[in-house]
Amino acid sequence: MGTIMSDVQTPLSRENFLQSVKYDAAGLVPAVAQDVTTGAVLMLAWMNEHSLRQTITTGNVTYWSRSRQQLWRKGETSGHTQRLVEAYVDCDGDTLLLKVEQTGPACHTGAPACFFRMLRE
Amino acid sequence: MGTIMSDVQTPLSRENFLQSVKYDAAGLVPAVAQDVTTGAVLMLAWMNEHSLRQTITTGNVTYWSRSRQQLWRKGETSGHTQRLVEAYVDCDGDTLLLKVEQTGPACHTGAPACFFRMLRE
Repeated sequence: MGTIMSDVQTPLSRENFLQSVKYDAAGLVPAVAQDVTTGAVLMLAWMNEHSLRQTITTGNVTYWSRSRQQLWRKGETSGHTQRLVEAYVDCDGDTLLLKVEQTGPACHTGAPACFFRMLRE
Repeated sequence: MGTIMSDVQTPLSRENFLQSVKYDAAGLVPAVAQDVTTGAVLMLAWMNEHSLRQTITTGNVTYWSRSRQQLWRKGETSGHTQRLVEAYVDCDGDTLLLKVEQTGPACHTGAPACFFRMLRE
């Protein structure tokens, strides 16, 4: 089964972090938001480089809305904001993980998280 | 801030679950794998309908490798398999969340999870 490395994080400076991200053909990267307190996976949304820079600079998680084709500061209308606590980029640079402080429900349906529909065999 | 709904899951039958999934133009949907024991977000990979059906049928998490353009049963060469415990589809059907029992490290680098590069300001 191989050896499990100790759970060491590799720290990256802001510029190294930004340069590590590989965007898809549309200039986007998926970002998984996880509640830093509960560990719940809240949602997945998309970022372009501008929204990622804005998220890091302001601490207010800001996505790119693919449906509206515009920057989308999470909670800008609902008040259900996400405060960035930790940001990770995966091994091959094509996914982000954001640990956040979530205010209110993360899902537009009012559910705490977007993953409330479960397979039940 | 609105009201937070109680954390109730909506159960879906296998066919309803499969029909809820919306694939992108390439026929793929992102799947987030979360360690059911620790809550750690392990990785994000992609599934097509065939790999999702195979995952549900066998309990062995099986992705679609975009680089190799073939089915990829996680751990088929490394032994670092993922056993499906719970599967969720998000509110708009375009992301999956898989709670898994991970054998060995999830990342091909040997790290426990793919998200080991962290922004450090």
